Amino acid sequence: MITLFYAAHTCSLASHIALEDVGADYATVRIDFAANQQRSPEYLAVNPKGRVPALVTERGILTETPAMLVFIAQMFPDARLAPLDDAFVFAQVQAFNSFLCSTLHVAHSHRMRGNRWADDPAAISAMQRKVPDSVSACYRLIEDGMLGTPWVMGDRYTICDPYLFTMAQWLEQDGVDPAQFPKVLAHRDRMAERPAVQKAIAVEFA
Amino acid sequence: MITLFYAAHTCSLASHIALEDVGADYATVRIDFAANQQRSPEYLAVNPKGRVPALVTERGILTETPAMLVFIAQMFPDARLAPLDDAFVFAQVQAFNSFLCSTLHVAHSHRMRGNRWADDPAAISAMQRKVPDSVSACYRLIEDGMLGTPWVMGDRYTICDPYLFTMAQWLEQDGVDPAQFPKVLAHRDRMAERPAVQKAIAVEFA
Repeated sequence: MITLFYAAHTCSLASHIALEDVGADYATVRIDFAANQQRSPEYLAVNPKGRVPALVTERGILTETPAMLVFIAQMFPDARLAPLDDAFVFAQVQAFNSFLCSTLHVAHSHRMRGNRWADDPAAISAMQRKVPDSVSACYRLIEDGMLGTPWVMGDRYTICDPYLFTMAQWLEQDGVDPAQFPKVLAHRDRMAERPAVQKAIAVEFA
Repeated sequence: MITLFYAAHTCSLASHIALEDVGADYATVRIDFAANQQRSPEYLAVNPKGRVPALVTERGILTETPAMLVFIAQMFPDARLAPLDDAFVFAQVQAFNSFLCSTLHVAHSHRMRGNRWADDPAAISAMQRKVPDSVSACYRLIEDGMLGTPWVMGDRYTICDPYLFTMAQWLEQDGVDPAQFPKVLAHRDRMAERPAVQKAIAVEFA
């Protein structure tokens, strides 16, 4: 049995959708960010970083979305969520997800988590003001050169898709006009129709 | 033939070392950040993100260090730089590298690249002031729970090692006292003795 520790409206949704995509037998544990539960001793024993997601497996605990997504794909190869047999295409999948975690998600985090990188309230406000621009710059790169159709990698649905969909939940709140990015928006709409996505969202947004 | 686009004193060193580790036949192209060459039309045609590293392969161009490191490991399986046959251990490798790119490298980037996330000079200064704390917090997690010996993953040298070594080049400039992190420092010293590391550094720091 696998257990996913998640929090609503965070990047844990990507792994949650992937677990649904592969038909995994898994449990979920909700972490309440409003109650700062991610910093509780109990949760820090699971993930000393105090972040979600975390995946408890029979062999130990995994963290970091790009790593967890590949693990889920490898554990359920029949679902073909990652091109594990083609090093180049697999690297393209990983490059996309790495861009999301290290650049897009980071740009987004400056809206709500500025205190990670500065203490001065004026500096934190200055960060918030730039989020629409910095997040839009990421989506410009995605829209213009990184996005296939109907899925990120083209014909084949992969672990890139739930991750992009998860990030794209935050477009409006980040002050980005989604109309600037019609391909991203179409991808988000397409994903929203999938039963796996609807099931994960029904749990997380409950 | 593989071509690595790199810039001195950046995370491209990790892939450079890995190419040496596997004995790849490769060329290098130096990008001069002081001349803003990463924003030149020529380089943007290679990597529209305007960042290093980029790896030109026979099948296309790859970016993002965690993806490139796995690709190098997969292309040269005899060097055994990644546990490709064990999904859980591979996920641990990926989780480590994902933490470096999305958390440690990002904390470091607030010293020199604050303009990515704010325009106000005072905010950029405030970010710089917090770098010693935010980078130290990452190394505290690494030192206390993420680092094996003699290598990151224990007995086996992997793609985590050149990546950590690359980040650890920046400790002193980020205002972190390395003496707080003896395991990280010992790892850095151990890496510096490897001929592959010395060869990559001789090129990049020339």
